[in-house]
Amino acid sequence: MFNRRDNIKEVEEGKYLAPKFDKYGLIPVITTDFHTGDILMHGYMNDEALKKTIENKEAYYWSRSRNEIWHKGQVSGFVQKVKEIRIDDDQDSIFLSVDIGKGASCHVGYRSCFYRSIPLGKIKNDKKIEMEFKEREKIFDPKKVYNKEPSPTKL
Amino acid sequence: MFNRRDNIKEVEEGKYLAPKFDKYGLIPVITTDFHTGDILMHGYMNDEALKKTIENKEAYYWSRSRNEIWHKGQVSGFVQKVKEIRIDDDQDSIFLSVDIGKGASCHVGYRSCFYRSIPLGKIKNDKKIEMEFKEREKIFDPKKVYNKEPSPTKL
Repeated sequence: MFNRRDNIKEVEEGKYLAPKFDKYGLIPVITTDFHTGDILMHGYMNDEALKKTIENKEAYYWSRSRNEIWHKGQVSGFVQKVKEIRIDDDQDSIFLSVDIGKGASCHVGYRSCFYRSIPLGKIKNDKKIEMEFKEREKIFDPKKVYNKEPSPTKL
Repeated sequence: MFNRRDNIKEVEEGKYLAPKFDKYGLIPVITTDFHTGDILMHGYMNDEALKKTIENKEAYYWSRSRNEIWHKGQVSGFVQKVKEIRIDDDQDSIFLSVDIGKGASCHVGYRSCFYRSIPLGKIKNDKKIEMEFKEREKIFDPKKVYNKEPSPTKL
């Protein structure tokens, strides 16, 4: 199904899909909102998740916290309908454009996982860096949706 | 400079920057075009690259092929002027919005590294998957720009 990676020119300029999975069998994935272009999340897929995503036109990831294939939206209901999949020059990262309607992609409840902005400029002598919230309204209440689930966030 | 990661609520809902670097000291980075919102590339930073990017307002990455800090554009001239930096819910991935003018971000010569689209739908019995080129015109000739440099692509 996937082409062999034995030629740099072919990987970069060829037309055959030859993804590079890392030593854990994963490839990073950038997911954007098909309607707005906004970045929603950053995740990972293994080969099975990539195949399922291509064939079912819904996003499947590899959950590194639960160590299993993760059909996004199975708990929250916010399934990601895949409109396009692209791969980069050396075929070691994937980009999905998805339709989530008026839903959310972030387990904290925001539409996008990237709701905080880091200020630019000189960092003051090892002082903590204070971020600005760019999303204020949560789309859903995570306590209600993920009642019994542990947080996927790892410290 | 970076807050301690000892509380999930604080990492997810707090205002202090507390990035999670992986066991190699790296955090993945999504880079988008400030003007169009298009995804340009996927890279990695270590703590020093992140600090330099915040302070100098130009993108620095960690080159995994050369194992060194990489001030993007030093060879090609296509420096990335950083307009905004965001971090995600569990603070283990970064998103940069950058201005590259009419330049390119891809060492193959295209504006974006994501110039190939993977067709959706049933995969035919282990047949190779043929992609579609979404960018046709290269912005520069990589042979001229990277004359003596080895390709960063790893097989």
